[in-house]
Amino acid sequence: MGAIPHGGRLIDRVLSGDQQQEALHRASSLPCLELSEEQACQVENLATGVYSPLEGFLTQDALMSVLERMRLPGGLPWTIPIILDVDRRAAAACEEGRDVLLTYQGRAMGLLHLKDAYGYDKPTVCRQVFGTDDGAHPGVRRVLAMGDTLLGGDVDLIEPLDTPFASRHLTPREARVLFTAKGWRTIVGFQTRNVPHLGHEYVQKTALTFVDGLFINPVVGPKKRGDFRDEVILAAYDALLRNYYLKDRAVLAVLKTGMYYAGPREAIFHAIVRKNFGCTHFIVGRDHAGAGHYYSPYAAQEIFDEFPDLGITPLFFTAFFYCRRCQGMANEKTCPHGEQDRLAFSGSKLRDAIVQQTGESALLIRPEVADTIRAVDNPFVTG
Amino acid sequence: MGAIPHGGRLIDRVLSGDQQQEALHRASSLPCLELSEEQACQVENLATGVYSPLEGFLTQDALMSVLERMRLPGGLPWTIPIILDVDRRAAAACEEGRDVLLTYQGRAMGLLHLKDAYGYDKPTVCRQVFGTDDGAHPGVRRVLAMGDTLLGGDVDLIEPLDTPFASRHLTPREARVLFTAKGWRTIVGFQTRNVPHLGHEYVQKTALTFVDGLFINPVVGPKKRGDFRDEVILAAYDALLRNYYLKDRAVLAVLKTGMYYAGPREAIFHAIVRKNFGCTHFIVGRDHAGAGHYYSPYAAQEIFDEFPDLGITPLFFTAFFYCRRCQGMANEKTCPHGEQDRLAFSGSKLRDAIVQQTGESALLIRPEVADTIRAVDNPFVTG
Repeated sequence: MGAIPHGGRLIDRVLSGDQQQEALHRASSLPCLELSEEQACQVENLATGVYSPLEGFLTQDALMSVLERMRLPGGLPWTIPIILDVDRRAAAACEEGRDVLLTYQGRAMGLLHLKDAYGYDKPTVCRQVFGTDDGAHPGVRRVLAMGDTLLGGDVDLIEPLDTPFASRHLTPREARVLFTAKGWRTIVGFQTRNVPHLGHEYVQKTALTFVDGLFINPVVGPKKRGDFRDEVILAAYDALLRNYYLKDRAVLAVLKTGMYYAGPREAIFHAIVRKNFGCTHFIVGRDHAGAGHYYSPYAAQEIFDEFPDLGITPLFFTAFFYCRRCQGMANEKTCPHGEQDRLAFSGSKLRDAIVQQTGESALLIRPEVADTIRAVDNPFVTG
Repeated sequence: MGAIPHGGRLIDRVLSGDQQQEALHRASSLPCLELSEEQACQVENLATGVYSPLEGFLTQDALMSVLERMRLPGGLPWTIPIILDVDRRAAAACEEGRDVLLTYQGRAMGLLHLKDAYGYDKPTVCRQVFGTDDGAHPGVRRVLAMGDTLLGGDVDLIEPLDTPFASRHLTPREARVLFTAKGWRTIVGFQTRNVPHLGHEYVQKTALTFVDGLFINPVVGPKKRGDFRDEVILAAYDALLRNYYLKDRAVLAVLKTGMYYAGPREAIFHAIVRKNFGCTHFIVGRDHAGAGHYYSPYAAQEIFDEFPDLGITPLFFTAFFYCRRCQGMANEKTCPHGEQDRLAFSGSKLRDAIVQQTGESALLIRPEVADTIRAVDNPFVTG
């Protein structure tokens, strides 16, 4: 594929045909571990370089270093624990130094070259990653529900997952090839887990003004109740891109990973992942990857000061809104007017705009996007 | 004044009280040269560091280097000849190696430490600076009207000029102090010679979104017939800033220099000057400092590739316009719609918008700005 123009080292641990056969041949003699959907996605991400420089699940040493220093033992930035949790029974079936066959829905999907199996203190991990061990925090809740043992070691991917969004999925390698083919030298990445409103469009297009291309990279996978469903987010983006973006300036691809709601640490993680996809810039808004009031509004921007060696340039946005006096989108640095002139993008206002189609709806969301969402029977995650 | 946070070396050749007295004492024995208004401005700019690293008018060696390499003999970027032209009679009164007293309107204003007096080939200079020797080009016309001899050498400023915009004038030193006092670490400079329309506001605010402050720096001085008068430009900006900008995010100060209409070379010159004022970024639009069709639309952006050592980051804009389908300002990278949906910012449309106040006027110019211009009897340069 020629020179890789951007980003970190491209990890490739996807087994070739011969290697696959060999792995499947050995499979019957290996201990076997059935993965959750999210764990299976992590294996795929690790093997295809989404989490470069990681090549596997964190070992105990690496986890300690990530928790305490926000860096890997070698010094490279890494802020979010990518860990494989199992219960004690499953752990007992594995042996350090030996391979484990990873299956998903009964099908062999990968190999774990098990380096260590170790216990961990959940509240400590939570305080270090989320700054809290409050069970009301969605990220904390997830950690508290995890198995008691972690398995560390590099992984190989035998077979990628089936995914309902296969046609919307790009590996880092594929994304880089595509960007190069488009002649983009500078690319800004946009993280999202929501349907696009005019504020998102404003942020994306403001950033795009200074780079060659925009990489819209919505996270698909487990979400909170009340979030928009992945299918709805993609259909809404399709409507937006078709009507309001140039084909040669924007690419959309899904990222199969969970949300951690880890605020500042997750902003760094999101930036590294987009660097791996070939982005040179990454958009970080107010309260990026936040939840409730656990993080101060700009903590996820300030943390970038600690990572001058990140290799991707953050583009910071202050709070944005529609301003009736400016008669357009504006942000806290560009608009001198007061709250009474501003229309903010709250979740509830956006829902009203979609459902009720009031006079101000068109200031919050494109009619084509609202129509698309309205056409879906139930746009929200339930249960 | 503490550490200088940004920009190039701060030249300071403004004589102190004692030095002034000494210079005026010597004045009676020196040959004397009466300057034009523009030449007097150049002396002031040279002495206060606006043209840093220059400390005086280009000598023959330096001029050749600037013309051929777009760099000074030492290698630093410099693209526009800052030269002092005189007729043969005035040249004959001067002596290389001796000081010349510079006067403006009969008043001693500076000293020239004359290093060389030399002839030059006007058509050659024009082709190198403007890419043409066509007498219809406004920059060429100016060179062709110049005296036949150039005087090179460093200058000292005895006394700054009286200026009708004294309260709007900042030296590079003063601008840096102000930016530091405001706590700005990143500052984007904006060059203009026009009243502000919504396109300018869009460009300025889009850039401001990613930096701490905006430095609006209109060029005042000799202009083309039909241009807006300097007083009108300043009054229009006052109206805009008062109504649509945060006080702590924008500073306006005038720059007393002529326009060269040298396109790419002038874009580099404009950027270096703003670096001297303490800017870290500089806005370069389509056909920056252009005239007629002498330069390709993006030549003034492409030239920055030749100056990786400029020390100020250009922010490039493609053509911008109001788009009826986007329902807001947009640019060629963000808007997929056609010409029929776009409202461009031509001079004639802008004049119509100011004078006639049609329904679409408010899409081109803020009503407060249009009102201000309309209140002036004759807003245009005549004669």
